[in-house]
Amino acid sequence: MTSDHQPPAFAASVPQPAGTPERLRRQIEFIIEVDQLKEVLRRSPLLAADRRENDAEHSWHLALMTLVLAEYADEPVDPARALAMVVLHDLVEIYAGDTFLYDSAGAADQEERERRAADRLFAILPDDQRDHFRALWDEFEARVSPEARFAKAMDRLQPLLLNYGNRGGTWRTPGVTDADVLARKSVIGDSSADLWDYARTLIRTGTDNGWLPRATPPAPPVHPVP
Amino acid sequence: MTSDHQPPAFAASVPQPAGTPERLRRQIEFIIEVDQLKEVLRRSPLLAADRRENDAEHSWHLALMTLVLAEYADEPVDPARALAMVVLHDLVEIYAGDTFLYDSAGAADQEERERRAADRLFAILPDDQRDHFRALWDEFEARVSPEARFAKAMDRLQPLLLNYGNRGGTWRTPGVTDADVLARKSVIGDSSADLWDYARTLIRTGTDNGWLPRATPPAPPVHPVP
Repeated sequence: MTSDHQPPAFAASVPQPAGTPERLRRQIEFIIEVDQLKEVLRRSPLLAADRRENDAEHSWHLALMTLVLAEYADEPVDPARALAMVVLHDLVEIYAGDTFLYDSAGAADQEERERRAADRLFAILPDDQRDHFRALWDEFEARVSPEARFAKAMDRLQPLLLNYGNRGGTWRTPGVTDADVLARKSVIGDSSADLWDYARTLIRTGTDNGWLPRATPPAPPVHPVP
Repeated sequence: MTSDHQPPAFAASVPQPAGTPERLRRQIEFIIEVDQLKEVLRRSPLLAADRRENDAEHSWHLALMTLVLAEYADEPVDPARALAMVVLHDLVEIYAGDTFLYDSAGAADQEERERRAADRLFAILPDDQRDHFRALWDEFEARVSPEARFAKAMDRLQPLLLNYGNRGGTWRTPGVTDADVLARKSVIGDSSADLWDYARTLIRTGTDNGWLPRATPPAPPVHPVP
């Protein structure tokens, strides 16, 4: 561990007491730096109040959902690894900002922006933890393990619940249709057939209730019902 | 599982689609009900903004700290159990409210209020999960396992970091002194000697800097320094 390590400006604004061991100092600087996640706003409105959710609240909600819903994963899931992923998954947004799921323009350079943010953020930590956390985040993003697929399913299901509960929410964004929502949410099915069934029921109910525009009107039945 | 189960009013305000299986319906109702944790305000101000922290943000921060600091626990800690405890530990405050650590009047009936809240809240879940989550919360409250002691240490260390970073924060509450803070924070030492060393350094630095009043002025040395 080099002693010329410099924390980013935000963490540096809380100077650590003289004599704090180097390893602990870097860990505490990371814990201070990520306080900023509480100020990264998402598009989704809460259920409990008329305001937008922030990334820290969202990440906590995913952890709670992981505890409750892990039994629906079609492949066995190690709960500690899935919990770590949902706790960490949005940290890059402290530097890269939140990219709205239905924003194609923002999506173009999202991967590159978030990779640079991960390089910068995890480097605050001691090297072994930097590598461990980065590997968990890469695994989550690439959805290459049962835990990553389950964590991503939670990340897609939670705002669906908020939109459904708010009778529309971000479904009412101009241009968004049920076909877009079904396409972006289909990764839920990569982890859990049961939760994907449930998610499709929410989307269908939202469309039927007029909270989410239909991409195309339903086709008439080919044969008249006798 | 009885079919006459009735969700509380908040969860019931988001009716689940017809045909949702009973077990999943209760789990989703719980996930909706706990959205209210995002509106339970704590006393501590954030580092990242001039506003008070809410319980969901606080719980997420403890989960992140658990990932980073688990290595300091003096007894081996199962990370999945410690993470579950910090994610769940404040849920009772949805019904019981937040009780300030230095509020002796509020502390008098806190245990009873929170126990009643736990009865009510966890009963939304299927019976097996109700019992499992309740057992985790009881274990956390009683600090009867390495995971519970570590989770409680995180719960005490996090607001200490916020107060230190804010050059006072709730330490400036009239009547609070360093002796009170040391007494309430000493449970950190039940889990980790290293983190308790660090915490005492934060408290001492806060006192030296005038952010936290001293209970009594330091005694003069008995023998004059030669």
